[in-house]
Amino acid sequence: MKTYLDCYPCFLTQALKSAKLAGANKEVQKRVIDRVARILPNIPLRSSPPETSLIIRNIVRKLAGGHDPYKGIKQKSNELALSIYDLLKKKVARSSDRLLAAVELAIAGNIIDYGAKHSLDINDEIVKILKDERKSIKNENKAIFNYADFKKELKKAKTILYIADNAGETVFDRILIEEIKLQYKNKEIIYAVKEKPVINDATIEDAVACGIEKYANIITSGAETAGAVLKFCSRRFLDVFKNSDMVISKGQGNFEALSGSKRRVFFLLMAKCPVVAEHISSLGAGCKVGDIILYHRRGNAQDKP
Amino acid sequence: MKTYLDCYPCFLTQALKSAKLAGANKEVQKRVIDRVARILPNIPLRSSPPETSLIIRNIVRKLAGGHDPYKGIKQKSNELALSIYDLLKKKVARSSDRLLAAVELAIAGNIIDYGAKHSLDINDEIVKILKDERKSIKNENKAIFNYADFKKELKKAKTILYIADNAGETVFDRILIEEIKLQYKNKEIIYAVKEKPVINDATIEDAVACGIEKYANIITSGAETAGAVLKFCSRRFLDVFKNSDMVISKGQGNFEALSGSKRRVFFLLMAKCPVVAEHISSLGAGCKVGDIILYHRRGNAQDKP
Repeated sequence: MKTYLDCYPCFLTQALKSAKLAGANKEVQKRVIDRVARILPNIPLRSSPPETSLIIRNIVRKLAGGHDPYKGIKQKSNELALSIYDLLKKKVARSSDRLLAAVELAIAGNIIDYGAKHSLDINDEIVKILKDERKSIKNENKAIFNYADFKKELKKAKTILYIADNAGETVFDRILIEEIKLQYKNKEIIYAVKEKPVINDATIEDAVACGIEKYANIITSGAETAGAVLKFCSRRFLDVFKNSDMVISKGQGNFEALSGSKRRVFFLLMAKCPVVAEHISSLGAGCKVGDIILYHRRGNAQDKP
Repeated sequence: MKTYLDCYPCFLTQALKSAKLAGANKEVQKRVIDRVARILPNIPLRSSPPETSLIIRNIVRKLAGGHDPYKGIKQKSNELALSIYDLLKKKVARSSDRLLAAVELAIAGNIIDYGAKHSLDINDEIVKILKDERKSIKNENKAIFNYADFKKELKKAKTILYIADNAGETVFDRILIEEIKLQYKNKEIIYAVKEKPVINDATIEDAVACGIEKYANIITSGAETAGAVLKFCSRRFLDVFKNSDMVISKGQGNFEALSGSKRRVFFLLMAKCPVVAEHISSLGAGCKVGDIILYHRRGNAQDKP
């Protein structure tokens, strides 16, 4: 996804928020804003938002110090999600279509994103998820919730690359991965996280804390961007991305980074900002903020990145 | 009020919104964003937000053309407010304290602000006002709703400067001005509007369209800023500001511009953004977004600007 004009004010908001979280005083916060404002005119519209987020993060790191501002938030997210693991499992067990329930939970888990513009009340949201109050549009709009294709591809695939998004959300990913392992034998799942701390995105430490390593091989994207921007990814990741039979991509950052890729990808996300919702709509699928999305991007004939 | 760090992203949002309203194409919108981003590091924290808005408006005017982007919106606001004039008058007539009802309506009329960040649904809001659903904090927190002082000063004052805010809101101002004229004889009211179009602020044309001239002398602030930033105001306005017995200031823009002034001012506004709400709280009065404010700023002993 390219950068939209409405993203520019949001870049400044993101910079200020990160500087505050990094514990910067007002003076340093102002310097971060000034530095980011100065580089904004150089951000081309054709670059994806995660590329700019990387530049912003480097500025914050340089001016406000190198520690990980989201560390505490990530730990809290992991703990919060783990504390409802049993409830989530029960919810899957009670469902008439267990895989569908696990897919929905994996997407709903994407709300655990303290880095998003409008921070939702997570406790409330989890209660809503558990009570089925959050309506999914799964059967009403196949263009943005293509479960049939997802299931078909899943059946065929031997190797599956699962590109992670946020800490905490990894527990919801685990629910889906466990379900895939249970329903289909001999699936190899590779779970890709960030190599270094990036906003509230999951790292190896978070994946292990959430117990993913029992069900999948954990690798890193090699990129320091919020989404897996391919030109910054490691050769190893690119090999897996290219050669896996199926790619599942979680969250808005990875959607922004990979929606222009040429290979077939299943994007599982919740549309969190108007710009992304509009972009998804422009792909031929009506979408509004808050929608639960399972978007099947077919890629080109070669199906390669 | 000084500029807060949270205002900087908002300046970019404002610039983009104005460029869109001015009918600029995407390319020009991007140039507006770039130009505003470049000047942001030069905006000192000590300047008030309306000063920056003026700079932004000039950039939009230069790059996107000179026509008044808010003209249609202002006309619509005036017509909408005039269409409920009789209902507003009835509401005042039914009240046990007519002046208080008129004050509350004048503040509530401040929601008619298409220029604010989150545009409220005006029809809904007017229905709420008429149904008394919008709770005023008038009797609960004297610090931010000081009706007693307002009434006391009003009784004494012979000349009253009433600094206007938005188009449409002027109808609500007229309700209050009519009520003052009805209850107190021999009050001279001077109604100050913008000299040139500034966002959706009222100009002489709007004041006349709303029938203010029957009850008050209309002057302009002489400033092109969204709030009456004194250093940009005309000598005539400054004379009136200095020598009037009482000053009533409407809206957030004038609050931002005048809350640091040394003279006694009664600020009637609705807090529309978190930064202003926090600033009001820092003045010793608890305040949250959406609160109806009648703030008595006492000024210094000399009570002069």
